[in-house]
Amino acid sequence: MILDTINCPSDLRKVPAADLPELVDELRETIIGTVSRTGGHLAPSLGVVDLTVALHYVFDTPKDRIIWDVGHQAYAHKLLTGRRERFNTLRQFGGISGFPKREESPCDHFNVGHASTSISAALGMVAARDIKGEDFKVIAVIGDGSISAGLAFEGLNQAGHLKKNLVVILNDNEMSISPNVGALSSYLNRMMTGNFYTKLKLETKQFLQNIPRVGESMFNIAKKAEESIKGFMAPGLLFEELGFQYVGPIDGHRMDHLLETFRNIKDFTWPVLIHVITKKGKGCEFAECNPAQFHGTPPFDPETGKTAGKKQKVMSYTEVFGQTMVKLAEDNDKIVAITAAMSDGTGLEKFAAQYPDRFFDVGIAESHGVTFACGLAVEGMRPVAAIYSTFMQRAYDQVMHDMCLQNLPVTLALDRAGLVGEDGPTHHGVFDLAYLRHLPNIVIMSPKDENELQHMIKTAVEHDGPAAVRYPRGTGLGVPMDQEVMSLPIGKGEVLREGEDVVIIAVGNMVRPSLEAAERLKTEGTSAAVVNARFVKPLDEDLILKMAKRTGRVVTVEEHALQGGFGSAVLECIDDNRLTGVKTHRIGLPDRFIEHGTQATLRQKYGLDADGIFASVRDFMDKTRLKAVAPVASIKTMDA
Amino acid sequence: MILDTINCPSDLRKVPAADLPELVDELRETIIGTVSRTGGHLAPSLGVVDLTVALHYVFDTPKDRIIWDVGHQAYAHKLLTGRRERFNTLRQFGGISGFPKREESPCDHFNVGHASTSISAALGMVAARDIKGEDFKVIAVIGDGSISAGLAFEGLNQAGHLKKNLVVILNDNEMSISPNVGALSSYLNRMMTGNFYTKLKLETKQFLQNIPRVGESMFNIAKKAEESIKGFMAPGLLFEELGFQYVGPIDGHRMDHLLETFRNIKDFTWPVLIHVITKKGKGCEFAECNPAQFHGTPPFDPETGKTAGKKQKVMSYTEVFGQTMVKLAEDNDKIVAITAAMSDGTGLEKFAAQYPDRFFDVGIAESHGVTFACGLAVEGMRPVAAIYSTFMQRAYDQVMHDMCLQNLPVTLALDRAGLVGEDGPTHHGVFDLAYLRHLPNIVIMSPKDENELQHMIKTAVEHDGPAAVRYPRGTGLGVPMDQEVMSLPIGKGEVLREGEDVVIIAVGNMVRPSLEAAERLKTEGTSAAVVNARFVKPLDEDLILKMAKRTGRVVTVEEHALQGGFGSAVLECIDDNRLTGVKTHRIGLPDRFIEHGTQATLRQKYGLDADGIFASVRDFMDKTRLKAVAPVASIKTMDA
Repeated sequence: MILDTINCPSDLRKVPAADLPELVDELRETIIGTVSRTGGHLAPSLGVVDLTVALHYVFDTPKDRIIWDVGHQAYAHKLLTGRRERFNTLRQFGGISGFPKREESPCDHFNVGHASTSISAALGMVAARDIKGEDFKVIAVIGDGSISAGLAFEGLNQAGHLKKNLVVILNDNEMSISPNVGALSSYLNRMMTGNFYTKLKLETKQFLQNIPRVGESMFNIAKKAEESIKGFMAPGLLFEELGFQYVGPIDGHRMDHLLETFRNIKDFTWPVLIHVITKKGKGCEFAECNPAQFHGTPPFDPETGKTAGKKQKVMSYTEVFGQTMVKLAEDNDKIVAITAAMSDGTGLEKFAAQYPDRFFDVGIAESHGVTFACGLAVEGMRPVAAIYSTFMQRAYDQVMHDMCLQNLPVTLALDRAGLVGEDGPTHHGVFDLAYLRHLPNIVIMSPKDENELQHMIKTAVEHDGPAAVRYPRGTGLGVPMDQEVMSLPIGKGEVLREGEDVVIIAVGNMVRPSLEAAERLKTEGTSAAVVNARFVKPLDEDLILKMAKRTGRVVTVEEHALQGGFGSAVLECIDDNRLTGVKTHRIGLPDRFIEHGTQATLRQKYGLDADGIFASVRDFMDKTRLKAVAPVASIKTMDA
Repeated sequence: MILDTINCPSDLRKVPAADLPELVDELRETIIGTVSRTGGHLAPSLGVVDLTVALHYVFDTPKDRIIWDVGHQAYAHKLLTGRRERFNTLRQFGGISGFPKREESPCDHFNVGHASTSISAALGMVAARDIKGEDFKVIAVIGDGSISAGLAFEGLNQAGHLKKNLVVILNDNEMSISPNVGALSSYLNRMMTGNFYTKLKLETKQFLQNIPRVGESMFNIAKKAEESIKGFMAPGLLFEELGFQYVGPIDGHRMDHLLETFRNIKDFTWPVLIHVITKKGKGCEFAECNPAQFHGTPPFDPETGKTAGKKQKVMSYTEVFGQTMVKLAEDNDKIVAITAAMSDGTGLEKFAAQYPDRFFDVGIAESHGVTFACGLAVEGMRPVAAIYSTFMQRAYDQVMHDMCLQNLPVTLALDRAGLVGEDGPTHHGVFDLAYLRHLPNIVIMSPKDENELQHMIKTAVEHDGPAAVRYPRGTGLGVPMDQEVMSLPIGKGEVLREGEDVVIIAVGNMVRPSLEAAERLKTEGTSAAVVNARFVKPLDEDLILKMAKRTGRVVTVEEHALQGGFGSAVLECIDDNRLTGVKTHRIGLPDRFIEHGTQATLRQKYGLDADGIFASVRDFMDKTRLKAVAPVASIKTMDA
């Protein structure tokens, strides 16, 4: 294999150009083989193999910097930049990341995972280069889905203004994760439709045939010329108006075209945008046919593309959310669903099919999605914005300024809350309670199981104000589903188990392992009550205070950062109510970014499974028992 | 006065069109007169008086909805929509807001204060209208500064895609707050430069004179046609490519033009963008000449525009920040400053003048600004992004995903942290500790006075990781400034006053009133220690624990929301260290949005002045003394 000879990009540049297509095939085979075992972002990475090879071949990497947008397409890049031998550890706990990571390689210049950061980051590097008087190229590679996001536009807007030496490669595969939406996407499609020059020739001919008689005013001539030109539209004019030289569109699977183009523009000293057309999943039939399914995939049969059948019929939280939305929409014609380029991922396909007029895919534009939802709510709708917990971070200001400040009945459906697993630190949804909890007016819920999820969605939609429901990635617990979906009383938790020595107050998916831990604690003589918090805001203060007074010991459990999280809310509650002497203990994630690995591995490592909770509570009990404090008697409200 | 007869828009529509210019003059006079007393956003509101009158005159408001972007230009709108008699209470505590507010009037359809939300909100309202089958127009009015923000682009992008009946008015005054930057701004400028049609005629003539000889290929003809057209650029093509019909540019101070244009497009059923050219400060000579100074102004002499001279020579925090940046940049050529359209507001004018190559105004694009800073940091620079606390909310995801996750040495200079006063709830910076504190790696500081601010900026810039410094709007305390700027030890607070009964741990500008409160407590026999926290993250845990053990009572004081704030961090610290029996009390802002009013008024109302802190601590002491708990003896670390 040629690939075996490549340990760094300079090795690649020794390969004769004629052999590059063979190398491209080897890379695709390696990627398909590995991802069939590890799972991962197959289709995006297959789409840019040729592009990746051509970039490293023409540019002097890593001196020249390639900045991958989102980064889930960087597998070929990883294979060519010294990570070939570790590639089989892709996305595994302790293995290499599924995204670019500066810690892994000097060829990774900017860590990433979220969309649309590449142009801004590249421009920053370009600005630094020019301040330092250094000489290297910076190349941002961004997809047509990502470039429609506001952040990318902000980057383009400043880059075109500064006129600095920067290359942006628009990797146009006509879909982000779902097929793309938006006017910019239509614009790109128009540029690719048919043969531009054929159309140009035809229309110019018509224009010339209609050259006016003498005497017709120049104004009219000009108007006609303008209309004629507008009709066929010069390609890339939109980018040229933003200060970029536009080159393309070029075929992203023709190595000769790619090499020639990159060589041509290599010495340009101004902003250039190269429009490259690629096919998602290229070279893998089933991935080409189903690019959405193979965007991110679990392990599959490399011959057929079949993934292992689900062992059980337990629905995922995502599916329950989608099903609930359809059910609720039947009875409530005010319900509107919004997704940000994730109609499949958020489980809204059926809703979209059944209620196309009440479904909006805003593209990768979370900020807009939330303000758009607020506009709907002002007019009496009950919008539900289904956005992953980690991506909702992009709409924090809109949640504060548009939604909570106006006290609007918008529901945030925060899927993928907590530890998401293999996608790692960019994707874990472990800050949502902390970034939402301080916002006035908002109601925040998290269900203990998938049955409670459906009730919480109804509760949120019927609540006359902002609400958020956070729920984890993956399957539910397999509990029976109530046929009737009911609204829950706002701010009321539930006692699932009585106990005298300690109360464990758990949030969402931490309820079940907490119950298991309590069961085991019993065998050791500790009587632990377990409360399903249900609401992170407003807290069920009465219940928390009652249980705290009764047991003298409060343990909180959350799959979330400890700083500013649910446990912190409980401490605030105890402080607000001037209750002293209660012994408290918070279980959650420590103050650092959490690596990638399976959800089970990470939960075990961070003590968020039944074993971990059991051990942590036992330790807490041991330490508080040592003091031999009579808990109940010593606890008082200060102003009782 | 005609204005006196107008209590709602339908009254306006009874005024003969010929009298509208007179009404416009009356509105300008009223605005100048009132703002000269109350202070406020003079220049933006003066710029759109004609536009406001024309909109209400042609459209059927409030059935038709006008959505103001940012909203600081809505004074004429307020005067025409039933708030004439209360207009003299503008921005006063208990009076009408300086921004649109649904609570104030049925003519205000969407609350606002931050930029670039109008298109998204309007589109949501349009979508709701169409679902409900109702019939009204929605008109978003957005400035040329705001439209360059990513959020506005996301809104345009979806609006052009949905092809719904929506009007966007681009109010182009060639500056946002500072003069505009960015490629889109250059584009708009080109559209306005010279007489478009003159240029068009000229170039078309040249084109026609050069009609090719027979035999020249059609391709070349077409290329020439394309180049020729590109050269003069059809106005609005960029917006047309995004799916909008473009109309303009039209003179925003010609009532007849405005009325005619609005009447013409009123019945269009697709997205229309009307490009209106206005002059900021129109009709007020000193405001026209200094639109930046009169963007937001304190009270002034309505004849001369002179504002009351500063009574004292105390520097503002902003000035100290700006001066420190210049000073630090002399010795450290890695320091780069970034502002988001606020070079004056953030105090960076001198830095910009002295180090133009190391100064970047990214426009209203906070998200991009932070990621851009991260790109600079990756290349070894030490960027300082100076963005108001409330606007940094727009970059929350970039702070998490690009800055903290990569542990990059970017400094966030969070001016206007805490209560900002008259701009009210959209602008108070009272959530920053809560939205930053849970992010791993970040160091968060807040100075007790302007002298400490300079040291903290140096500390942040020299720290090898992300840092944020939050400081309030307004003047410092007038303390002497150290000549030598020094780096502070990270995570170390300082004891400013020893005491035995209680420790008051204060953040930033709450330190001084806490010292005053402690002084008064002494007269009542309470010995209160006072600690300047300096660092909100990492906390000075040793100091906090030592003082907590010594006194048994901990009070925290912050000009920030209590949920997830500094006090909450202290509770976490006590919990993490298994310290039980300490009595705690958190002073800060309650869990609701804080209204507008002067900073002094609001601090008094919310108990964040010396009086309030004194009263709150006294109450806390009374209640804890009643229990007669011997504090010191009963406090133990659980695992001691």
